Amino acid sequence: MEFSVGQIASLVNGQVEGDAEAKISSFAKIEEGHPGAISFLANEKYTHYIYTTGSTAVLVRRDFTPEQPITTTLIRVDDPYATVAMLLRMVSAMLNPPKRGIEQPCFIAEGVEVPEDAYIGAFAYIGTGAVIGAGAQIYPQTYVGDGVKVGDGTTLYAGVRVYKGCRIGKNCIIHSGAVIGADGFGFAPVDGHYDKIPQLGIVEIADNVEIGANTTIDRATMGATRIHEGVKLDNLIQVGHNAEIGQATVMAAQTGVAGSTKVGAHCMFGGQVGMAGHITIGDNVMVAAKSGIKDEVKSGSRLFGSPAVDFREYARNQVNISRIPDLVAKLKKIERLLDPKN
Amino acid sequence: MEFSVGQIASLVNGQVEGDAEAKISSFAKIEEGHPGAISFLANEKYTHYIYTTGSTAVLVRRDFTPEQPITTTLIRVDDPYATVAMLLRMVSAMLNPPKRGIEQPCFIAEGVEVPEDAYIGAFAYIGTGAVIGAGAQIYPQTYVGDGVKVGDGTTLYAGVRVYKGCRIGKNCIIHSGAVIGADGFGFAPVDGHYDKIPQLGIVEIADNVEIGANTTIDRATMGATRIHEGVKLDNLIQVGHNAEIGQATVMAAQTGVAGSTKVGAHCMFGGQVGMAGHITIGDNVMVAAKSGIKDEVKSGSRLFGSPAVDFREYARNQVNISRIPDLVAKLKKIERLLDPKN
Amino acid sequence: MEFSVGQIASLVNGQVEGDAEAKISSFAKIEEGHPGAISFLANEKYTHYIYTTGSTAVLVRRDFTPEQPITTTLIRVDDPYATVAMLLRMVSAMLNPPKRGIEQPCFIAEGVEVPEDAYIGAFAYIGTGAVIGAGAQIYPQTYVGDGVKVGDGTTLYAGVRVYKGCRIGKNCIIHSGAVIGADGFGFAPVDGHYDKIPQLGIVEIADNVEIGANTTIDRATMGATRIHEGVKLDNLIQVGHNAEIGQATVMAAQTGVAGSTKVGAHCMFGGQVGMAGHITIGDNVMVAAKSGIKDEVKSGSRLFGSPAVDFREYARNQVNISRIPDLVAKLKKIERLLDPKN
Repeated sequence: MEFSVGQIASLVNGQVEGDAEAKISSFAKIEEGHPGAISFLANEKYTHYIYTTGSTAVLVRRDFTPEQPITTTLIRVDDPYATVAMLLRMVSAMLNPPKRGIEQPCFIAEGVEVPEDAYIGAFAYIGTGAVIGAGAQIYPQTYVGDGVKVGDGTTLYAGVRVYKGCRIGKNCIIHSGAVIGADGFGFAPVDGHYDKIPQLGIVEIADNVEIGANTTIDRATMGATRIHEGVKLDNLIQVGHNAEIGQATVMAAQTGVAGSTKVGAHCMFGGQVGMAGHITIGDNVMVAAKSGIKDEVKSGSRLFGSPAVDFREYARNQVNISRIPDLVAKLKKIERLLDPKN
Repeated sequence: MEFSVGQIASLVNGQVEGDAEAKISSFAKIEEGHPGAISFLANEKYTHYIYTTGSTAVLVRRDFTPEQPITTTLIRVDDPYATVAMLLRMVSAMLNPPKRGIEQPCFIAEGVEVPEDAYIGAFAYIGTGAVIGAGAQIYPQTYVGDGVKVGDGTTLYAGVRVYKGCRIGKNCIIHSGAVIGADGFGFAPVDGHYDKIPQLGIVEIADNVEIGANTTIDRATMGATRIHEGVKLDNLIQVGHNAEIGQATVMAAQTGVAGSTKVGAHCMFGGQVGMAGHITIGDNVMVAAKSGIKDEVKSGSRLFGSPAVDFREYARNQVNISRIPDLVAKLKKIERLLDPKN
Repeated sequence: MEFSVGQIASLVNGQVEGDAEAKISSFAKIEEGHPGAISFLANEKYTHYIYTTGSTAVLVRRDFTPEQPITTTLIRVDDPYATVAMLLRMVSAMLNPPKRGIEQPCFIAEGVEVPEDAYIGAFAYIGTGAVIGAGAQIYPQTYVGDGVKVGDGTTLYAGVRVYKGCRIGKNCIIHSGAVIGADGFGFAPVDGHYDKIPQLGIVEIADNVEIGANTTIDRATMGATRIHEGVKLDNLIQVGHNAEIGQATVMAAQTGVAGSTKVGAHCMFGGQVGMAGHITIGDNVMVAAKSGIKDEVKSGSRLFGSPAVDFREYARNQVNISRIPDLVAKLKKIERLLDPKN
């Protein structure tokens, strides 16, 4: 695929400054630019790269004022990041058209209907009573257990496993190796060993959810573990049984949510955060990477550290620790003053 | 399935208080109760829900005394939690009867005998010399390497991978995506690069072990990485080569045990705990979530923090840090007193 | 396989002290020795085991001087650890000869050429335009997406997933469940929900890289996420989009590298370390387990803690906290002295 700078500019309602005839055939980060590539400048930290970038064109803000001569062609737009995202979506749609049809061999239980516009990859397994939505993309080697519901337009990449009875909404994307609906971790101690508590609930995933590679979401003991609309989970995340993640909350990789914890809507979690079980976390909470949360969290909180505390308290603690050597010195001085023999 | 409250009460040796004819067809948490559901009340924290629960019946302790009028029907039993666990097991056994037979296509190496009551799912791979126990449940897309032994009554869910030569005991449950017997992380530094140390040992898993989704247990360099009887590992746990986990020890999700570390029996680990390699951890040790253990741990210890210390020491440190502002203020006062110019 | 002690000694240029005719048929750790096994003594910590080991022979340093009578046979060599590694490699090569041929059923897209000496296991999926190197070992149930390149001599164990367009070098080993090239975690907040930023880049893995079980390496937004020559990643590691890991760097299990971070060459990371996004970490950096890195790191640094600081600063902070009770006591004494009413 190749477009001229002028074609792209007219597509994104941009204003060209430079060579409108130049040809663009790829994207590049501004610092890794090369001929034929288009880049974008959204973060000021990267401004200095615009004077030396090898990219043929760069999307910039309408009010961008260069402080040195520029050799690349500029395309001025309202929001360079949103514009590049839109261009990426257009190209992605061209490069990755939905697949259709059923590759053989695969295993589709008797009675399951596969919509004409869906894709079932080779070695996929579709259990009894499963429901496959229109346009669903079930990649090779995926396991869709008995009675599972996969919504319209949802993609399960290669090797996703969905246990019996779980429900996945529309337009979700679940990446390879994710496991939806394995048994929650429930055991009753009895005379020095543990008896398993059967996990009879399910996992219910709403629409527009994206789940990262090798993330695990356990089924509920009873009822459902719930992932609400628009949640985005990164890779290698653990969600325990009966937990709940509120609408449009995002979690970075390797975070863990213990059982029965309710996380609110519009929260943001850094990576490797841990949340204890049976707690409630409000809406619009932001949590720094590696934090550990063991108690209730109010809506709007900004947390840091393990155990997690308000960001300001965390900073104060760090300052306080750094003051100790000074305290020791001053105290020594006073002791000498009071008792010269010291 | 539907039972009357009276039928359930007679099954669990319970005493009905309310409508013995009411029909029960599902379980629900007391706070999520609905008509037709049975709930239980074991944790005092949840007592207030009993006055408003939508559940048709609730299992309570024999000595439970309501403090307000109750509309739901009570079933009084000795131990509500153990009773609900028993009911869940009965229902689970009805809903999930063992599977039997061999789904096609699958790959079973020549000479492997599959017991008549075992299940081999489609796209499963059973290598040369593997031994499959009576009643074993090998779900679709599972990999059982050459010479692997799977004990009687053991379940490997979809997509479990067991490398060459590893041994799994009886009545184990291994969840999707778990990898048993990948190479231990062993490299010898040589002239600025690393030479691989081959990992010729195996993983040996005893009876009644449950292993969570996407957990990884590496094979030993020589000898065996050992998971003893009744161990319960949650999801996304890492167990390094030549490590050993003692009988009936439980570990929550995302915990890591580095190579050659020996963990004792009857220990409990919270999530995201890390253990250094080549250390020994005694029996009956309890470790709080997110702790980091780098040295030997005595039996019976209660640990917290990273580096992990005794729970009381951890609490003292937290209190001490909180005292610093007070120390600073007092010191300032004394300095002024001693030298008014300050 | 069975060898005499004398045969092994001549192979490794060793000097026998004891029974050169004794037969060796396995390896064992010195503390787990048994008749017929050969062990090694490289770490002084284990010296006491040599007087009681059950192993038939032990590799020791040329200058090893026993302090008690020894019953096992010694083989004196320059470097016992390197020697045992060499023996392990020889035995491993005998026990695990490369596999050849194509097991059925598998799925190989039209036009893909499989070299005669390569292995494709049953239920493997090889997409359109994929390139399979000479001698490549593609185990069962592996997914090799469209246009993926797998280098000569590279092994993908059962259930590895490589998304579209990613490139893997020569002589790499990728363990079961690893996911290479899932979408980076990129979303643009728009009116209270998130729009996906398509991830059009790839993952590029150089030669001689080993990647652990269930590790995930995300594809770049544009350009490539890069794993350089000789990198060794343990299990359950997360590498975010557009990150870069320098030559011969090793990372222990459960570590996470956030997006766009550049890690230098010859670094060593303990387990469960977290690195923030968009930072640069120099060469020859060593980081203790469980550390959290949020800023730039200079080459040669030794880091500890979360947030990670220089090892000495970390130790000072710990000492400082331990001084607080003493400060409190001294201050109290001074206050009494200055004001007897206190």
